[in-house]
Amino acid sequence: MYVIVVGCGRVGSQLATFLSEEGHDVAIIDKNADAFRRLGSTFNGLTVQGLGFDQDTLKEAGIEKADVFSAVTDLDNTNMMAVEVATKIFDVPRAIARLYNPTRSLTYEKLGLEYVCGTVMLAEKLLETIIAPDVDILVTVGNFYIIRILAGESFIDQTVSQIGKDNFCRIITIIRRMKNVYCERETKVQKNDQLIVIIKKSGLAQMEKRISKARTSN
Amino acid sequence: MYVIVVGCGRVGSQLATFLSEEGHDVAIIDKNADAFRRLGSTFNGLTVQGLGFDQDTLKEAGIEKADVFSAVTDLDNTNMMAVEVATKIFDVPRAIARLYNPTRSLTYEKLGLEYVCGTVMLAEKLLETIIAPDVDILVTVGNFYIIRILAGESFIDQTVSQIGKDNFCRIITIIRRMKNVYCERETKVQKNDQLIVIIKKSGLAQMEKRISKARTSN
Repeated sequence: MYVIVVGCGRVGSQLATFLSEEGHDVAIIDKNADAFRRLGSTFNGLTVQGLGFDQDTLKEAGIEKADVFSAVTDLDNTNMMAVEVATKIFDVPRAIARLYNPTRSLTYEKLGLEYVCGTVMLAEKLLETIIAPDVDILVTVGNFYIIRILAGESFIDQTVSQIGKDNFCRIITIIRRMKNVYCERETKVQKNDQLIVIIKKSGLAQMEKRISKARTSN
Repeated sequence: MYVIVVGCGRVGSQLATFLSEEGHDVAIIDKNADAFRRLGSTFNGLTVQGLGFDQDTLKEAGIEKADVFSAVTDLDNTNMMAVEVATKIFDVPRAIARLYNPTRSLTYEKLGLEYVCGTVMLAEKLLETIIAPDVDILVTVGNFYIIRILAGESFIDQTVSQIGKDNFCRIITIIRRMKNVYCERETKVQKNDQLIVIIKKSGLAQMEKRISKARTSN
Protein backbone atom coordinates (compact mmCIF):
# COMPACT_ATOMS: atom_id res chain seq x y z
CA MET A 1 0.00 0.00 0.00
CA TYR A 2 1.01 3.61 -0.53
CA VAL A 3 0.33 5.54 2.66
CA ILE A 4 0.71 9.25 3.37
CA VAL A 5 1.19 10.35 6.96
CA VAL A 6 0.77 14.01 7.89
CA GLY A 7 2.62 15.07 11.04
CA CYS A 8 5.99 13.72 12.12
CA GLY A 9 5.57 14.17 15.84
CA ARG A 10 5.86 11.25 18.24
CA VAL A 11 2.75 9.51 16.93
CA GLY A 12 3.34 10.20 13.23
CA SER A 13 7.01 9.18 13.27
CA GLN A 14 6.18 5.96 15.11
CA LEU A 15 3.35 5.18 12.70
CA ALA A 16 5.48 5.87 9.61
CA THR A 17 8.26 3.66 10.98
CA PHE A 18 5.82 0.82 11.75
CA LEU A 19 4.33 1.05 8.23
CA SER A 20 7.73 1.12 6.61
CA GLU A 21 8.85 -1.92 8.65
CA GLU A 22 5.75 -3.77 7.48
CA GLY A 23 6.83 -3.21 3.87
CA HIS A 24 4.45 -0.41 2.87
CA ASP A 25 5.45 2.63 0.83
CA VAL A 26 5.22 5.69 3.03
CA ALA A 27 5.48 9.45 2.49
CA ILE A 28 5.53 11.63 5.60
CA ILE A 29 4.78 15.35 5.63
CA ASP A 30 5.71 17.88 8.31
CA LYS A 31 5.95 21.65 8.24
CA ASN A 32 9.19 21.40 10.18
CA ALA A 33 12.06 19.50 8.54
CA ASP A 34 13.72 18.92 11.93
CA ALA A 35 10.82 16.64 12.85
CA PHE A 36 12.05 13.98 10.43
CA ARG A 37 14.91 13.23 12.83
CA ARG A 38 12.36 11.35 14.91
CA LEU A 39 12.01 8.70 12.21
CA GLY A 40 13.57 5.36 13.05
CA SER A 41 16.60 4.11 11.16
CA THR A 42 14.36 1.45 9.60
CA PHE A 43 12.27 4.11 7.84
CA ASN A 44 12.94 4.10 4.12
CA GLY A 45 10.09 6.23 2.83
CA LEU A 46 9.80 9.75 1.49
CA THR A 47 9.91 12.91 3.65
CA VAL A 48 8.26 16.11 2.41
CA GLN A 49 8.42 19.47 4.16
CA GLY A 50 5.18 21.44 3.93
CA LEU A 51 1.60 21.73 5.13
CA GLY A 52 -0.62 18.67 5.13
CA PHE A 53 -3.46 20.46 3.36
CA ASP A 54 -1.35 22.24 0.76
CA GLN A 55 -2.03 20.78 -2.68
CA ASP A 56 1.51 21.16 -4.02
CA THR A 57 2.94 19.51 -0.93
CA LEU A 58 0.44 16.67 -1.23
CA LYS A 59 1.29 16.16 -4.90
CA GLU A 60 4.98 16.07 -4.05
CA ALA A 61 4.18 13.37 -1.49
CA GLY A 62 2.51 11.34 -4.24
CA ILE A 63 -1.10 11.77 -3.18
CA GLU A 64 -2.36 10.79 -6.61
CA LYS A 65 -1.26 7.21 -6.03
CA ALA A 66 -2.07 7.03 -2.28
CA ASP A 67 -4.24 4.17 -1.02
CA VAL A 68 -4.58 5.56 2.49
CA PHE A 69 -4.10 9.04 3.93
CA SER A 70 -3.68 9.68 7.65
CA ALA A 71 -3.45 13.05 9.37
CA VAL A 72 -2.03 12.67 12.86
CA THR A 73 -0.72 16.10 13.91
CA ASP A 74 -1.73 17.32 17.37
CA LEU A 75 -4.12 19.88 15.89
CA ASP A 76 -7.65 18.64 15.22
CA ASN A 77 -8.40 21.39 12.70
CA THR A 78 -5.27 20.66 10.67
CA ASN A 79 -6.08 16.96 10.60
CA MET A 80 -9.67 17.56 9.58
CA MET A 81 -8.72 19.97 6.80
CA ALA A 82 -5.99 17.66 5.46
CA VAL A 83 -8.43 14.75 5.36
CA GLU A 84 -11.02 16.85 3.55
CA VAL A 85 -8.50 17.92 0.89
CA ALA A 86 -7.24 14.36 0.45
CA THR A 87 -10.69 12.84 -0.02
CA LYS A 88 -12.63 15.64 -1.75
CA ILE A 89 -9.93 17.03 -4.07
CA PHE A 90 -7.66 14.04 -4.59
CA ASP A 91 -10.14 11.19 -4.18
CA VAL A 92 -7.92 9.16 -1.87
CA PRO A 93 -9.95 6.01 -1.12
CA ARG A 94 -9.45 6.10 2.67
CA ALA A 95 -8.48 8.86 5.05
CA ILE A 96 -8.11 8.70 8.82
CA ALA A 97 -7.82 11.64 11.19
CA ARG A 98 -6.31 11.59 14.63
CA LEU A 99 -8.74 13.20 17.05
CA TYR A 100 -7.68 14.98 20.24
CA ASN A 101 -10.86 16.45 21.55
CA PRO A 102 -13.37 13.65 22.23
CA THR A 103 -16.32 16.08 22.30
CA ARG A 104 -15.92 16.34 18.53
CA SER A 105 -16.41 12.63 17.94
CA LEU A 106 -20.16 12.83 17.34
CA THR A 107 -19.65 15.53 14.72
CA TYR A 108 -16.96 13.45 13.00
CA GLU A 109 -19.33 10.49 12.89
CA LYS A 110 -22.11 12.59 11.38
CA LEU A 111 -19.68 13.91 8.76
CA GLY A 112 -18.59 10.35 8.01
CA LEU A 113 -14.98 11.12 8.94
CA GLU A 114 -12.94 8.11 9.98
CA TYR A 115 -10.93 8.90 13.11
CA VAL A 116 -9.00 7.44 15.99
CA CYS A 117 -9.28 9.21 19.35
CA GLY A 118 -6.16 8.72 21.43
CA THR A 119 -7.60 10.56 24.42
CA VAL A 120 -10.45 8.14 25.05
CA MET A 121 -8.24 5.12 24.28
CA LEU A 122 -5.65 6.22 26.81
CA ALA A 123 -8.21 7.02 29.51
CA GLU A 124 -9.78 3.57 29.04
CA LYS A 125 -6.39 1.87 29.21
CA LEU A 126 -5.53 3.77 32.42
CA LEU A 127 -8.89 2.80 33.90
CA GLU A 128 -8.23 -0.88 33.19
CA THR A 129 -4.71 -0.65 34.60
CA ILE A 130 -6.06 0.93 37.78
CA ILE A 131 -9.03 -1.34 38.43
CA ALA A 132 -7.66 -4.65 37.13
CA PRO A 133 -3.84 -4.62 36.86
CA ASP A 134 -3.46 -8.39 36.51
CA VAL A 135 -6.16 -8.79 33.94
CA ASP A 136 -5.85 -7.64 30.35
CA ILE A 137 -9.30 -6.70 29.06
CA LEU A 138 -9.42 -7.40 25.33
CA VAL A 139 -13.05 -6.69 24.49
CA THR A 140 -16.17 -5.56 26.29
CA VAL A 141 -19.40 -7.07 24.98
CA GLY A 142 -22.65 -6.36 26.75
CA ASN A 143 -22.21 -7.41 30.35
CA PHE A 144 -19.11 -9.50 29.89
CA TYR A 145 -15.44 -9.15 29.06
CA ILE A 146 -13.03 -11.22 27.06
CA ILE A 147 -9.80 -11.07 29.06
CA ARG A 148 -6.28 -12.42 28.95
CA ILE A 149 -4.68 -13.61 32.17
CA LEU A 150 -1.43 -15.26 33.06
CA ALA A 151 -2.16 -18.58 34.76
CA GLY A 152 -1.29 -17.84 38.39
CA GLU A 153 -0.04 -20.50 40.78
CA SER A 154 -3.61 -21.12 41.86
CA PHE A 155 -4.71 -22.43 38.44
CA ILE A 156 -1.83 -24.77 37.69
CA ASP A 157 -2.83 -28.42 37.12
CA GLN A 158 -6.50 -27.54 37.27
CA THR A 159 -8.71 -28.47 34.34
CA VAL A 160 -10.38 -25.96 32.08
CA SER A 161 -13.81 -27.04 33.24
CA GLN A 162 -12.90 -26.80 36.94
CA ILE A 163 -11.52 -23.26 36.60
CA GLY A 164 -14.62 -22.26 34.69
CA LYS A 165 -16.92 -23.64 37.35
CA ASP A 166 -15.00 -22.07 40.26
CA ASN A 167 -14.74 -18.63 38.71
CA PHE A 168 -17.98 -18.25 36.73
CA CYS A 169 -16.06 -17.92 33.52
CA ARG A 170 -15.14 -19.92 30.43
CA ILE A 171 -11.63 -20.46 29.13
CA ILE A 172 -11.94 -20.21 25.36
CA THR A 173 -8.35 -20.88 24.48
CA ILE A 174 -4.89 -21.32 25.97
CA ILE A 175 -1.65 -19.84 24.67
CA ARG A 176 1.35 -21.94 25.65
CA ARG A 177 4.92 -21.07 24.65
CA MET A 178 3.64 -18.61 22.04
CA LYS A 179 1.48 -21.32 20.47
CA ASN A 180 -2.24 -21.85 20.59
CA VAL A 181 -3.38 -24.99 22.45
CA TYR A 182 -6.61 -26.66 21.45
CA CYS A 183 -8.36 -26.76 24.80
CA GLU A 184 -10.99 -29.23 25.87
CA ARG A 185 -12.83 -29.59 29.15
CA GLU A 186 -10.17 -31.84 30.64
CA THR A 187 -7.13 -29.86 29.41
CA LYS A 188 -4.92 -29.00 32.38
CA VAL A 189 -3.42 -25.54 32.79
CA GLN A 190 0.37 -25.33 33.02
CA LYS A 191 2.66 -22.72 34.51
CA ASN A 192 3.08 -19.61 32.31
CA ASP A 193 0.04 -20.43 30.21
CA GLN A 194 -1.89 -17.42 29.01
CA LEU A 195 -5.62 -17.98 29.29
CA ILE A 196 -8.16 -16.24 27.08
CA VAL A 197 -11.31 -16.13 29.16
CA ILE A 198 -14.90 -14.96 28.86
CA ILE A 199 -16.16 -13.59 32.14
CA LYS A 200 -19.14 -11.63 33.40
CA LYS A 201 -18.31 -8.08 34.40
CA SER A 202 -19.51 -8.87 37.91
CA GLY A 203 -16.94 -11.68 38.17
CA LEU A 204 -13.92 -9.59 37.24
CA ALA A 205 -13.09 -8.25 40.69
CA GLN A 206 -12.99 -11.75 42.19
CA MET A 207 -10.81 -13.06 39.36
CA GLU A 208 -8.47 -10.09 39.76
CA LYS A 209 -8.23 -10.74 43.50
CA ARG A 210 -7.52 -14.40 43.00
CA ILE A 211 -4.70 -13.84 40.50
CA SER A 212 -3.11 -10.99 42.40
CA LYS A 213 -3.16 -13.04 45.63
CA ALA A 214 -1.41 -15.96 43.94
CA ARG A 215 1.12 -13.59 42.43
CA THR A 216 2.02 -11.71 45.61
CA SER A 217 2.27 -14.86 47.71
CA ASN A 218 5.15 -16.13 45.57
CA MET B 1 -10.94 2.08 45.92
CA TYR B 2 -9.63 5.55 46.68
CA VAL B 3 -7.88 6.89 43.59
CA ILE B 4 -5.98 10.15 43.12
CA VAL B 5 -5.65 11.52 39.60
CA VAL B 6 -3.13 14.29 38.87
CA GLY B 7 -3.95 16.39 35.82
CA CYS B 8 -7.45 17.37 34.73
CA GLY B 9 -6.75 17.68 31.01
CA ARG B 10 -8.67 15.64 28.47
CA VAL B 11 -7.21 12.33 29.60
CA GLY B 12 -7.36 13.02 33.35
CA SER B 13 -10.90 14.36 33.32
CA GLN B 14 -12.10 11.39 31.29
CA LEU B 15 -10.32 8.95 33.59
CA ALA B 16 -11.70 10.59 36.75
CA THR B 17 -15.22 10.52 35.30
CA PHE B 18 -14.92 6.84 34.34
CA LEU B 19 -13.63 5.94 37.83
CA SER B 20 -16.38 7.92 39.51
CA GLU B 21 -19.03 6.24 37.33
CA GLU B 22 -17.64 2.85 38.33
CA GLY B 23 -18.25 3.72 41.97
CA HIS B 24 -14.71 4.53 43.10
CA ASP B 25 -13.76 7.46 45.33
CA VAL B 26 -11.73 9.92 43.31
CA ALA B 27 -9.74 13.06 44.07
CA ILE B 28 -8.43 15.03 41.10
CA ILE B 29 -5.63 17.59 41.27
CA ASP B 30 -4.83 20.33 38.76
CA LYS B 31 -2.81 23.52 39.05
CA ASN B 32 -5.54 25.33 37.16
CA ALA B 33 -9.02 25.40 38.73
CA ASP B 34 -10.65 26.10 35.35
CA ALA B 35 -9.62 22.62 34.23
CA PHE B 36 -12.23 21.06 36.52
CA ARG B 37 -14.93 22.28 34.13
CA ARG B 38 -13.93 19.36 31.90
CA LEU B 39 -15.27 16.87 34.45
CA GLY B 40 -18.47 15.15 33.44
CA SER B 41 -21.69 15.83 35.31
CA THR B 42 -21.49 12.27 36.68
CA PHE B 43 -18.25 13.07 38.55
CA ASN B 44 -18.90 13.25 42.26
CA GLY B 45 -15.35 13.20 43.62
CA LEU B 46 -13.06 15.80 45.18
CA THR B 47 -11.26 18.53 43.19
CA VAL B 48 -8.06 20.07 44.60
CA GLN B 49 -6.18 22.98 43.05
CA GLY B 50 -2.41 22.64 43.31
CA LEU B 51 0.68 20.84 42.08
CA GLY B 52 0.66 17.05 41.86
CA PHE B 53 3.98 16.70 43.68
CA ASP B 54 3.27 19.24 46.42
CA GLN B 55 2.90 17.46 49.76
CA ASP B 56 0.23 19.77 51.17
CA THR B 57 -1.84 19.47 48.01
CA LEU B 58 -1.51 15.70 48.10
CA LYS B 59 -2.56 15.58 51.78
CA GLU B 60 -5.57 17.72 50.97
CA ALA B 61 -6.47 15.22 48.24
CA GLY B 62 -6.36 12.44 50.84
CA ILE B 63 -3.18 10.73 49.75
CA GLU B 64 -2.81 9.01 53.10
CA LYS B 65 -5.78 6.80 52.32
CA ALA B 66 -5.16 6.39 48.56
CA ASP B 67 -5.06 2.87 47.10
CA VAL B 68 -3.90 4.00 43.67
CA PHE B 69 -2.21 7.17 42.44
CA SER B 70 -2.10 8.16 38.78
CA ALA B 71 -0.26 11.11 37.25
CA VAL B 72 -1.58 11.85 33.78
CA THR B 73 -0.58 15.43 32.94
CA ASP B 74 1.02 16.04 29.55
CA LEU B 75 4.44 16.59 31.12
CA ASP B 76 6.54 13.47 31.66
CA ASN B 77 8.71 15.10 34.32
CA THR B 78 5.73 16.24 36.36
CA ASN B 79 4.19 12.77 36.19
CA MET B 80 7.42 11.08 37.20
CA MET B 81 8.01 13.43 40.12
CA ALA B 82 4.43 13.10 41.37
CA VAL B 83 4.66 9.30 41.25
CA GLU B 84 7.97 9.38 43.14
CA VAL B 85 6.53 11.56 45.91
CA ALA B 86 3.38 9.40 46.16
CA THR B 87 5.25 6.11 46.48
CA LYS B 88 8.45 7.14 48.35
CA ILE B 89 7.05 9.71 50.78
CA PHE B 90 3.44 8.62 51.18
CA ASP B 91 3.77 4.88 50.54
CA VAL B 92 0.82 4.69 48.17
CA PRO B 93 0.62 0.98 47.20
CA ARG B 94 0.35 1.58 43.43
CA ALA B 95 1.24 4.52 41.23
CA ILE B 96 0.92 4.83 37.47
CA ALA B 97 2.46 7.50 35.27
CA ARG B 98 1.29 8.54 31.85
CA LEU B 99 4.25 8.54 29.48
CA TYR B 100 4.50 10.80 26.43
CA ASN B 101 7.97 10.19 25.14
CA PRO B 102 8.36 6.50 24.25
CA THR B 103 12.17 6.71 24.27
CA ARG B 104 11.92 6.94 28.07
CA SER B 105 10.13 3.63 28.43
CA LEU B 106 13.25 1.54 28.96
CA THR B 107 14.38 3.86 31.76
CA TYR B 108 10.94 3.68 33.39
CA GLU B 109 11.10 -0.09 33.28
CA LYS B 110 14.55 -0.14 34.87
CA LEU B 111 13.32 2.20 37.60
CA GLY B 112 10.33 -0.07 38.17
CA LEU B 113 7.89 2.73 37.35
CA GLU B 114 4.48 1.57 36.18
CA TYR B 115 3.39 3.57 33.14
CA VAL B 116 1.02 3.70 30.21
CA CYS B 117 2.37 5.16 26.97
CA GLY B 118 -0.39 6.72 24.89
CA THR B 119 1.90 7.54 21.99
CA VAL B 120 2.80 3.95 21.18
CA MET B 121 -0.77 2.78 21.82
CA LEU B 122 -2.18 5.33 19.40
CA ALA B 123 0.43 4.62 16.70
CA GLU B 124 -0.35 0.90 16.96
CA LYS B 125 -4.09 1.54 16.74
CA LEU B 126 -3.60 3.75 13.67
CA LEU B 127 -1.43 1.09 12.09
CA GLU B 128 -4.15 -1.53 12.60
CA THR B 129 -6.83 0.81 11.26
CA ILE B 130 -4.74 1.46 8.15
CA ILE B 131 -3.65 -2.08 7.36
CA ALA B 132 -6.72 -3.99 8.52
CA PRO B 133 -9.79 -1.74 8.86
CA ASP B 134 -12.33 -4.55 9.06
CA VAL B 135 -10.41 -6.64 11.53
CA ASP B 136 -10.04 -5.75 15.18
CA ILE B 137 -6.71 -7.12 16.44
CA LEU B 138 -7.11 -7.99 20.12
CA VAL B 139 -3.80 -9.64 20.92
CA THR B 140 -0.58 -10.45 19.14
CA VAL B 141 1.11 -13.65 20.29
CA GLY B 142 4.20 -14.91 18.49
CA ASN B 143 3.28 -15.27 14.86
CA PHE B 144 -0.47 -15.13 15.24
CA TYR B 145 -3.23 -12.72 16.19
CA ILE B 146 -6.43 -13.07 18.10
CA ILE B 147 -8.90 -10.93 16.17
CA ARG B 148 -12.54 -9.94 16.28
CA ILE B 149 -14.47 -9.73 13.03
CA LEU B 150 -18.05 -9.08 12.13
CA ALA B 151 -19.40 -12.03 10.18
CA GLY B 152 -19.60 -10.71 6.66
CA GLU B 153 -22.13 -11.97 4.15
CA SER B 154 -19.63 -14.52 2.92
CA PHE B 155 -19.56 -16.43 6.24
CA ILE B 156 -23.28 -16.64 6.90
CA ASP B 157 -24.67 -20.18 7.24
CA GLN B 158 -21.19 -21.66 7.05
CA THR B 159 -20.02 -23.89 9.86
CA VAL B 160 -17.22 -23.01 12.25
CA SER B 161 -15.08 -25.86 10.94
CA GLN B 162 -15.61 -24.86 7.28
CA ILE B 163 -14.63 -21.23 7.87
CA GLY B 164 -11.56 -22.39 9.77
CA LYS B 165 -10.49 -24.71 6.98
CA ASP B 166 -11.04 -22.13 4.22
CA ASN B 167 -9.22 -19.31 5.98
CA PHE B 168 -6.44 -21.06 7.89
CA CYS B 169 -7.84 -19.85 11.17
CA ARG B 170 -9.80 -21.11 14.16
CA ILE B 171 -12.98 -19.53 15.50
CA ILE B 172 -12.66 -19.75 19.26
CA THR B 173 -15.96 -18.21 20.18
CA ILE B 174 -18.99 -16.40 18.76
CA ILE B 175 -20.74 -13.39 20.19
CA ARG B 176 -24.37 -13.23 19.16
CA ARG B 177 -26.74 -10.47 20.27
CA MET B 178 -24.29 -9.43 23.02
CA LYS B 179 -24.22 -12.99 24.37
CA ASN B 180 -21.53 -15.61 24.12
CA VAL B 181 -22.46 -18.69 22.08
CA TYR B 182 -20.86 -22.01 22.90
CA CYS B 183 -19.46 -22.92 19.50
CA GLU B 184 -18.78 -26.39 18.22
CA ARG B 185 -17.47 -27.57 14.89
CA GLU B 186 -20.93 -27.70 13.35
CA THR B 187 -22.21 -24.39 14.74
CA LYS B 188 -23.42 -22.16 11.89
CA VAL B 189 -22.55 -18.49 11.72
CA GLN B 190 -25.48 -16.05 11.59
CA LYS B 191 -25.73 -12.50 10.33
CA ASN B 192 -24.25 -9.89 12.70
CA ASP B 193 -22.34 -12.51 14.69
CA GLN B 194 -19.03 -11.32 16.01
CA LEU B 195 -16.37 -13.98 15.62
CA ILE B 196 -13.33 -14.23 17.86
CA VAL B 197 -10.69 -15.88 15.74
CA ILE B 198 -7.11 -17.09 16.03
CA ILE B 199 -5.23 -16.53 12.81
CA LYS B 200 -1.64 -16.63 11.61
CA LYS B 201 -0.17 -13.23 10.84
CA SER B 202 0.37 -14.35 7.26
CA GLY B 203 -3.35 -15.07 6.89
CA LEU B 204 -4.57 -11.64 8.00
CA ALA B 205 -4.37 -9.86 4.65
CA GLN B 206 -6.49 -12.53 2.96
CA MET B 207 -9.06 -12.47 5.75
CA GLU B 208 -9.21 -8.68 5.58
CA LYS B 209 -9.72 -8.82 1.82
CA ARG B 210 -12.47 -11.37 2.13
CA ILE B 211 -14.45 -9.42 4.71
CA SER B 212 -14.02 -6.06 3.03
CA LYS B 213 -15.14 -7.51 -0.31
CA ALA B 214 -18.30 -8.95 1.22
CA ARG B 215 -18.97 -5.64 2.96
CA THR B 216 -18.54 -3.38 -0.06
CA SER B 217 -20.58 -5.63 -2.34
CA ASN B 218 -23.68 -5.13 -0.20
